[in-house]
Amino acid sequence: MGLGEWGKRGRGREEMEEQVEGLGRAFVDHYYYLFDNDRSSLPSLYHSTSMLTFEGHKVQGVDEISQKLNLLPFDQCQHVISTIDSQPSSFTGGIMVFVSGSLKLPGEEHQLRFSQMFHLVPSSEGSFFVQNDIFRLNYG
Amino acid sequence: MGLGEWGKRGRGREEMEEQVEGLGRAFVDHYYYLFDNDRSSLPSLYHSTSMLTFEGHKVQGVDEISQKLNLLPFDQCQHVISTIDSQPSSFTGGIMVFVSGSLKLPGEEHQLRFSQMFHLVPSSEGSFFVQNDIFRLNYG
Repeated sequence: MGLGEWGKRGRGREEMEEQVEGLGRAFVDHYYYLFDNDRSSLPSLYHSTSMLTFEGHKVQGVDEISQKLNLLPFDQCQHVISTIDSQPSSFTGGIMVFVSGSLKLPGEEHQLRFSQMFHLVPSSEGSFFVQNDIFRLNYG
Repeated sequence: MGLGEWGKRGRGREEMEEQVEGLGRAFVDHYYYLFDNDRSSLPSLYHSTSMLTFEGHKVQGVDEISQKLNLLPFDQCQHVISTIDSQPSSFTGGIMVFVSGSLKLPGEEHQLRFSQMFHLVPSSEGSFFVQNDIFRLNYG
């Protein structure tokens, strides 16, 4: 069964949901581990067609995304994940991943709440890359 | 130019960004207007393949989504939108829309912050339908 179908309610659909959730969690673990520990490696998850909107600022392609991520006004940070919701992206064979969590910055007493969505698309190498990435801080 | 390409930096890309942002804003205005004023009409924006994850609860297809939306534990509500970020969905000719805002419920002093993402896909009627919809309240 392709990732593009959740199937009918029942065992097939449950298996699909578990598979998609597992892939979403694995991606999220990997993405934020790299972000917090080896940010210069993050651009390897994007392709030339990829788009990032970070707090309303839009960039596209590996070079622009790399520059944006590496020029953020903080060097060290720690993402703490609260929720991960994943769905199949039916027309691409990919996955939609929606994350909420907190961002801890050094010297900051308060954590910053954030939400982020990723559209993961299958790559020709049999893996996934980030086609769409939108990040927003949540202000109370 | 198809929605699937943002184009190179320059006038073409700016025009595409404006077009996608305009479509995203128009969808968001329409969606939350219906949600707050005519919720029973919301299912018309979904198709049989559509998926909704609402606070971690997953449903699929127009009937399940309709039931979920109409059985939410509040009748009246008002969404106040803070941010809308839209990107083309390159492999479907559609649009990704990421929304943050507040939800006001009658009798509740405090507003509830929320984030929501939509993957809009072109329909055979020349419009868009909601293929993916993920909603989360943001707890401080």
